[in-house]
Amino acid sequence: MSKNNFYNNSQDDEKNLDKIEGRNPILEHLRAGKDINRLFIQKGDRSGSINEIIALAKDKGIVITEVEKTKMDKMSDTHHAQGVIAIVPPYEYSSVDDIIEEARSKGEKPFIIILDGIEDPHNLGSIIRTAECSGAHGIIIPKRRSALVNSTVNKTSAGALEYMKVAMVTNLNETIRYLQSKDIWIYGTDMEATSYYYEQNYADSGVAIIIGSEGFGMSKLVKENCDFLIKIPMTGHINSLNASVSAAIVMYEVMNQRGGAEE
Amino acid sequence: MSKNNFYNNSQDDEKNLDKIEGRNPILEHLRAGKDINRLFIQKGDRSGSINEIIALAKDKGIVITEVEKTKMDKMSDTHHAQGVIAIVPPYEYSSVDDIIEEARSKGEKPFIIILDGIEDPHNLGSIIRTAECSGAHGIIIPKRRSALVNSTVNKTSAGALEYMKVAMVTNLNETIRYLQSKDIWIYGTDMEATSYYYEQNYADSGVAIIIGSEGFGMSKLVKENCDFLIKIPMTGHINSLNASVSAAIVMYEVMNQRGGAEE
Repeated sequence: MSKNNFYNNSQDDEKNLDKIEGRNPILEHLRAGKDINRLFIQKGDRSGSINEIIALAKDKGIVITEVEKTKMDKMSDTHHAQGVIAIVPPYEYSSVDDIIEEARSKGEKPFIIILDGIEDPHNLGSIIRTAECSGAHGIIIPKRRSALVNSTVNKTSAGALEYMKVAMVTNLNETIRYLQSKDIWIYGTDMEATSYYYEQNYADSGVAIIIGSEGFGMSKLVKENCDFLIKIPMTGHINSLNASVSAAIVMYEVMNQRGGAEE
Repeated sequence: MSKNNFYNNSQDDEKNLDKIEGRNPILEHLRAGKDINRLFIQKGDRSGSINEIIALAKDKGIVITEVEKTKMDKMSDTHHAQGVIAIVPPYEYSSVDDIIEEARSKGEKPFIIILDGIEDPHNLGSIIRTAECSGAHGIIIPKRRSALVNSTVNKTSAGALEYMKVAMVTNLNETIRYLQSKDIWIYGTDMEATSYYYEQNYADSGVAIIIGSEGFGMSKLVKENCDFLIKIPMTGHINSLNASVSAAIVMYEVMNQRGGAEE
């Protein structure tokens, strides 16, 4: 089985996830009750959570194959497989309506993250992880000019991908107008905004926060379609935060305004 | 020149930084007026900021050597050298007193980040980057069980390392007691804390924020030496933030309480 066989490269260059690497992501996948077609375990490696993974997989009747370390290394895209790789059905993106329904079913006002031009899969994975911890209902990414869900994203999300809805849309501006029609306010993060992120009220209505690319920010039209532009204060010489750090700072402001983790 | 020759491995396994990779980190190094012994530029690559780097280097009389892409790839540790690698004098760590003096010289109460067990150089680099943007005066790392400053840390910091003091100490607990003797309050981030990070006052005294490792948090003794334990609220299933994201959320609370980026 060659490395590239794990991916179905469809005509529009969309990569389907059909491999999950690493202990936490696979453990969370199993705990979430999702399918695994085949599980590869590195020979001789029986420390820590690997035993829990094997026990859960056996319970579900999943085919487990032991492989040598050299083969495991060849199979791995992330280079941090930690002795375990799962072959799974292609990742299923959610729809924007699924995300809105997720909020409704919890009796909460929608809290959505929109990524405009985040091309680094580590940033996408990190944003998914923080979104899950901060109570966001879903993430929207465009089909073009964006990292898509793959094994690196899953690994970086530390398993959070299993619990977070990700929608992929063809036209971000149409999606923004659709969200606005559903009474969701659109907040774009922009260096040139005149208001700070903590000066807005995110508690009393649905919100979607747009994070642009590190180098270029949001695209022009997306920026024009925002209801509010917000910025994060910066001092010092660099004046540039990592995109996943910017996203985290704003997400936690939304979470805190909405009452944090109170039960 | 073999790959490993760039590092001086001293007896205690401490790696000195003597290589910087990537456009932004090298540009910031030059702008900060720091030395470069030799600059390697990839042949044929003359797009964007590379010309500014060459011009600044020529001004300073730095030896510039053109190399083929294959050689550049072999020299690179980060795999994102972007066509430019600088050989520089070993990284000079600051002292804890340098960090305290940095705050004093700015007329500010000390704002220090202490890392206890952050072993991933990407996390260290990301924390340095956010620290520089949020007005921290310095970062303290232990000599053992920690990522040390290297080319990956520098690259991930996006150049912020040039402007941020990093002190490496042999005994974190002694350092904590020393900071306490200087009227700096120690706040440890801990999942089991009873108070949330935003419930503390960071504006009226010197503060040091301790970030522990993702897997195990702070070590037991360090935790006992804290004046306050604080936690970040989390909802959802994963209940685990990336260490650099946790650090960013608390750093921005300190920054905002202290008046943000107001001039």
